[in-house]
Amino acid sequence: MLRNSRIRFLTTNINKKGGCISVRKPRVVVLGGGYGGLITVSRLQKLVGVNEADITLVNKNDYHYETTWLHEASAGTLHHDKARYQIKDVIDNSRVNFVKNTVVAINKDEKKIVLENSELHYDYLVVALGSQPETFGIKGLKEYAFGITNINSSRQLREHIEYQFATYNTEEVKRDERLTIVVGGAGFTGIEFLGELANRVPQLCKEYDIDNKKVRIVCVEAAPTALPGFDPELVDYAVNHLQRKGVDFMIGTAIKECTEKGIIVAKDDQMEEIKADTVVWAAGVRGNNVVEEAGFENMRGRVKVDEFLRAPGHDDVYIIGDCSLVINEEINRPYPPTAQIAMQQGETCAKNLSVSIREQGEMSGFKPEIKGAVASLGEHDAVGVVFGKKLVGSKASFMKKMIDNRALYMVGGAPLVIKKGKFNIL
Amino acid sequence: MLRNSRIRFLTTNINKKGGCISVRKPRVVVLGGGYGGLITVSRLQKLVGVNEADITLVNKNDYHYETTWLHEASAGTLHHDKARYQIKDVIDNSRVNFVKNTVVAINKDEKKIVLENSELHYDYLVVALGSQPETFGIKGLKEYAFGITNINSSRQLREHIEYQFATYNTEEVKRDERLTIVVGGAGFTGIEFLGELANRVPQLCKEYDIDNKKVRIVCVEAAPTALPGFDPELVDYAVNHLQRKGVDFMIGTAIKECTEKGIIVAKDDQMEEIKADTVVWAAGVRGNNVVEEAGFENMRGRVKVDEFLRAPGHDDVYIIGDCSLVINEEINRPYPPTAQIAMQQGETCAKNLSVSIREQGEMSGFKPEIKGAVASLGEHDAVGVVFGKKLVGSKASFMKKMIDNRALYMVGGAPLVIKKGKFNIL
Repeated sequence: MLRNSRIRFLTTNINKKGGCISVRKPRVVVLGGGYGGLITVSRLQKLVGVNEADITLVNKNDYHYETTWLHEASAGTLHHDKARYQIKDVIDNSRVNFVKNTVVAINKDEKKIVLENSELHYDYLVVALGSQPETFGIKGLKEYAFGITNINSSRQLREHIEYQFATYNTEEVKRDERLTIVVGGAGFTGIEFLGELANRVPQLCKEYDIDNKKVRIVCVEAAPTALPGFDPELVDYAVNHLQRKGVDFMIGTAIKECTEKGIIVAKDDQMEEIKADTVVWAAGVRGNNVVEEAGFENMRGRVKVDEFLRAPGHDDVYIIGDCSLVINEEINRPYPPTAQIAMQQGETCAKNLSVSIREQGEMSGFKPEIKGAVASLGEHDAVGVVFGKKLVGSKASFMKKMIDNRALYMVGGAPLVIKKGKFNIL
Repeated sequence: MLRNSRIRFLTTNINKKGGCISVRKPRVVVLGGGYGGLITVSRLQKLVGVNEADITLVNKNDYHYETTWLHEASAGTLHHDKARYQIKDVIDNSRVNFVKNTVVAINKDEKKIVLENSELHYDYLVVALGSQPETFGIKGLKEYAFGITNINSSRQLREHIEYQFATYNTEEVKRDERLTIVVGGAGFTGIEFLGELANRVPQLCKEYDIDNKKVRIVCVEAAPTALPGFDPELVDYAVNHLQRKGVDFMIGTAIKECTEKGIIVAKDDQMEEIKADTVVWAAGVRGNNVVEEAGFENMRGRVKVDEFLRAPGHDDVYIIGDCSLVINEEINRPYPPTAQIAMQQGETCAKNLSVSIREQGEMSGFKPEIKGAVASLGEHDAVGVVFGKKLVGSKASFMKKMIDNRALYMVGGAPLVIKKGKFNIL
């Protein structure tokens, strides 16, 4: 069987001494060095031998970042370097060819990846390109709102907020909207960012000689509750905690428009303008537009994959992470895109790839094993469910840090946990 | 004589039990908690007894800042809190009444100070309000250029530069002018700021994943040399040092206009636009507009004081520091305004005030004792003359730090040096 597999990738090499037929190894190309892509590569490099496959990982940056830690980097409570690490430090560089480049297009008919200034051919493709912000067509959000999207956007947001505080006292006529921060969305990212922001604001006030009372933090959420999908008791805990720290909630309120001056919201047909020099959009993600443009059947950039994580009709294309759609059959709705699922998919994907490459063994069906979800509320508080148990306060916060450390461990083992882990435990 | 002095400030207090005449102590009001004002107060509180005078110090902020350290705070190489200290920590609060307020006007005929929301009457006044930026009417500088003027402006400039670096990589089309910094003026402040900036830029590049080569620092100076007034050998050393660190000098080049996009310069009738998102104006200061508006004879807010540091025709008004003008008779030109002179004036002013208050003793004529001048070129390099000796490199840098520490010692003694002093000596 192993020989069979190789025969599929026969190629002709002609050297000066004469023609000869050599066997070409299958080329596996993994797009994206996020949770899904990195786990796939780190598992695959162990599962298949050096003679069995060529593995190439393509990523826009030479680093991986912890998407689920960006709310901290954005608020400035954790340095962004703590939330990223070099990809070359966690892959086997003798086994994996790392290409730092941006994916422009997937040509699935020619089995080709178009990069910014080169091309790559694949026999097996793993699409793990992650998500993009979804603005639902709300006017002005793309132009005026900041995002908690990646390292670049997070440190820009951190510096933008700091610049507003730094400028406040330089102006003769004080503009209080410099100190108003609107967060669009009370979902996971929005709530976690608010928790960090509430801790960061007093530091900024001290740094720039500003009265805390001048600062206003407003969270606008269109849904009828914060943290939709969470247990109501946990939602109450989170909202009360943030309110006590000075966050105003406008629940059941939709952002109609974002302008240079702030936002316009609507509730029960009442329109209101909130002047704010900082608007953060944290209310939704979609799959990657490259997936859409490649012509896979998709819903907002997410592809409903088969049980083996392959794109329907494309047995050579695996799609995992935020670009994939997996249905939770218990409630007949998609699982929300999380790091947890992406990493589990990476494990399954690597196993199934090795079966495909060897044409041997049995493919594994993917079934998410949801261990829980914990939303942090700043450094020492959180709410969540872990193994079916509701947790709040320092216990939840402890679990959250263990979850964060586990993500590091999954990719880089103990050395990475020691280097980047969270040990600020009360 | 002491009694005579008191009789001058007789006042009538009428209480319920009947009229009585009481003796009022002379009121000394010191405007400004900079180098001159603070030294005046710290000396005066020792020179005159508690029954001899009421001393009031008025300052905009509750802190003093080291004007001569602001280039570091502006570049971000020294935290602004290291460059300031609380005024209440260095004055005798049982002797001096500290008023945190902004001086709006001096009414010398009514011997009255108008503050933002109150008034103060004085018998003796010390004007030590410091300098303001002089833009020489160059269009757009006030609107678009940053200044190294005070704590507020310095931390705003620091954050502005950092925000440009933080934003660079978030934009699909890279705008290199985000990383272009123009410094107007190669005088003392300009050169010292460039020295810090040249050290700061590599740190910013590392923080924000930017290639050092993308950054451009340009210094534009209208005069035919950098550091006018300095020994040519020292000027060469400074310019070469900064050029090696990547600073472009445009000497003998005038800034014609500052716009939202950068500056327009002219040399030999050739006009050129330099696109830059950061323009820093460090090319000149003038006295305080309050001094001008009070009707003292002045040249750009600076009053040519008599030998005892009093405003001509106003024996009750002392003017010291950057608002005063003292002629260097050797060259028949004014001494440049420096912290060194301001502090020496503060000493003389306090002595003369005590003579005035007591109507006893002899007034001291002021004669600056110029010990030297050292311009820093970053943390470990400098150029200057100390006690007539030319110094460059680490020796000059050491002397610069000793000068900085001495300023702390003059006001707050050893405890302040320990708290805020510079001990980062190679």
